Amino acid sequence: MSTLSPVTSPLSVADVTRIIDDAYPGIHAGGRRLVIESVADRAARVRLLLSERSIRPGGTISGPAMFTLADFSIYVALLATLGASAVQSVTSNLNITFLMRPEPTDVIAEVRVIRIGKRLSYSEVNLFSEGRPDAIAHATATYAMPPSTVK
Amino acid sequence: MSTLSPVTSPLSVADVTRIIDDAYPGIHAGGRRLVIESVADRAARVRLLLSERSIRPGGTISGPAMFTLADFSIYVALLATLGASAVQSVTSNLNITFLMRPEPTDVIAEVRVIRIGKRLSYSEVNLFSEGRPDAIAHATATYAMPPSTVK
Amino acid sequence: MSTLSPVTSPLSVADVTRIIDDAYPGIHAGGRRLVIESVADRAARVRLLLSERSIRPGGTISGPAMFTLADFSIYVALLATLGASAVQSVTSNLNITFLMRPEPTDVIAEVRVIRIGKRLSYSEVNLFSEGRPDAIAHATATYAMPPSTVK
Amino acid sequence: MSTLSPVTSPLSVADVTRIIDDAYPGIHAGGRRLVIESVADRAARVRLLLSERSIRPGGTISGPAMFTLADFSIYVALLATLGASAVQSVTSNLNITFLMRPEPTDVIAEVRVIRIGKRLSYSEVNLFSEGRPDAIAHATATYAMPPSTVK
Repeated sequence: MSTLSPVTSPLSVADVTRIIDDAYPGIHAGGRRLVIESVADRAARVRLLLSERSIRPGGTISGPAMFTLADFSIYVALLATLGASAVQSVTSNLNITFLMRPEPTDVIAEVRVIRIGKRLSYSEVNLFSEGRPDAIAHATATYAMPPSTVK
Repeated sequence: MSTLSPVTSPLSVADVTRIIDDAYPGIHAGGRRLVIESVADRAARVRLLLSERSIRPGGTISGPAMFTLADFSIYVALLATLGASAVQSVTSNLNITFLMRPEPTDVIAEVRVIRIGKRLSYSEVNLFSEGRPDAIAHATATYAMPPSTVK
Repeated sequence: MSTLSPVTSPLSVADVTRIIDDAYPGIHAGGRRLVIESVADRAARVRLLLSERSIRPGGTISGPAMFTLADFSIYVALLATLGASAVQSVTSNLNITFLMRPEPTDVIAEVRVIRIGKRLSYSEVNLFSEGRPDAIAHATATYAMPPSTVK
Repeated sequence: MSTLSPVTSPLSVADVTRIIDDAYPGIHAGGRRLVIESVADRAARVRLLLSERSIRPGGTISGPAMFTLADFSIYVALLATLGASAVQSVTSNLNITFLMRPEPTDVIAEVRVIRIGKRLSYSEVNLFSEGRPDAIAHATATYAMPPSTVK
């Protein structure tokens, strides 16, 4: 597939946060749980704040909370790379493997966008318990890119 | 891998609901959103009630809400088939593909457990917008089975 | 995504075999190992003949041989459903889970096409050792559909 | 899951090649197509030599050839990390995404083993057309580890 040209300079954390808050006004209704820490060309780092809602009995982070973090952080990396034209990107597939029992801490997601094509993008994300070196989960995802993303 | 013997007769909806409510007392803190409609040997049907929390702008159901439904409904089918000894089963991998934009309705999950082994089980689930014939999403999942599940 | 109209009547086994033999003249250079047994609208059944090339020490069928069967049989189902216009379809993703050690017999693939969209199709396939009821492997696959497939 | 201790020093390319040739005497019957280029702790680099068998009309490398390379190269990395005790490891799941049309050249696989547990290991592999910077395919795989691997 032919490739998209990313924006000349990747957006800032503030830029991406504003695009998301504009597009999804209710996203932080229950309190801001997902914090964008850094963005770069084809990359992002996002933190899931520990909260009652994401904890399971025994102190572990729930699978759906980790899915939400993985999915959101990839979306952040696409916006950082392509700008607001990517806001209509939608998840086509997400494959997540849970590798270790998470610690009862914040979870950090580190995204790498592997491929941005005209129709599809493909990314991977490693999730870490804060301060620990080994990934607790790994996901890959395909996003369908909106036609308007083509520059 | 060698196989597990399922329980002689599959559990009822009430049995499975009680096992889950006992194991996860806080699971319905925000209101009961996931309703088990039927269970059978290696099968389950679960409904996600439409709610503010699972809706995205434009009226569509969020990806995380569909992930949660898929993951939960497979867990229900394992409990129905194996009984309370499966309560410690944990998701090892979940791969979900989003096929169509969901309608703003309840979502129905229909699970088929394909394989129950000593260590791992493997299931698939089709998600439907209520009253529509075509799947809006399809997922497969591997669960790690607790040693105590072996009968 | 909007849907493709399948051909009015699905093609026959002979039709699909001819389309494939025309498009891939060298495909049976080492002998015909993949035999289309039946096709229908959004479905196909394909047999992998047992051969030296697909056997591993201990008499088991190799993973690559099962991948090849899964991938080919989905392609057959797409051709049967959409006709020769789908010949340029290409595999975008294939996810295969190996469930049981295969018997040293032919392997049968049964495909169900779950979704045919304008850009992507999504299918699942169960693989069986001949004469055994339980699947030895299960795969899902996304194919990118050629623009010319749209009717 | 608890972790396996890798061998004190990773094996050499010659070590791993010998283990595989001993375990699978017929593997190179049609000529040696898969060449181990380097191994390290939790890593490997393997080359698929261009051949008639792996080429499709139009000069592209076949999907099954890339699956075979991905699967084999992960096996090599496990052997390099764990030694001959891992020879009975078997692929439990392999998920491959094809990102770009391959060039008619050798294909290089670069593996990273992300997690080695007592029962399962999880790895990722990027495939490249020789001399090109962008991955043509990306795969993740779960291998079931033999009990004897525990050290």
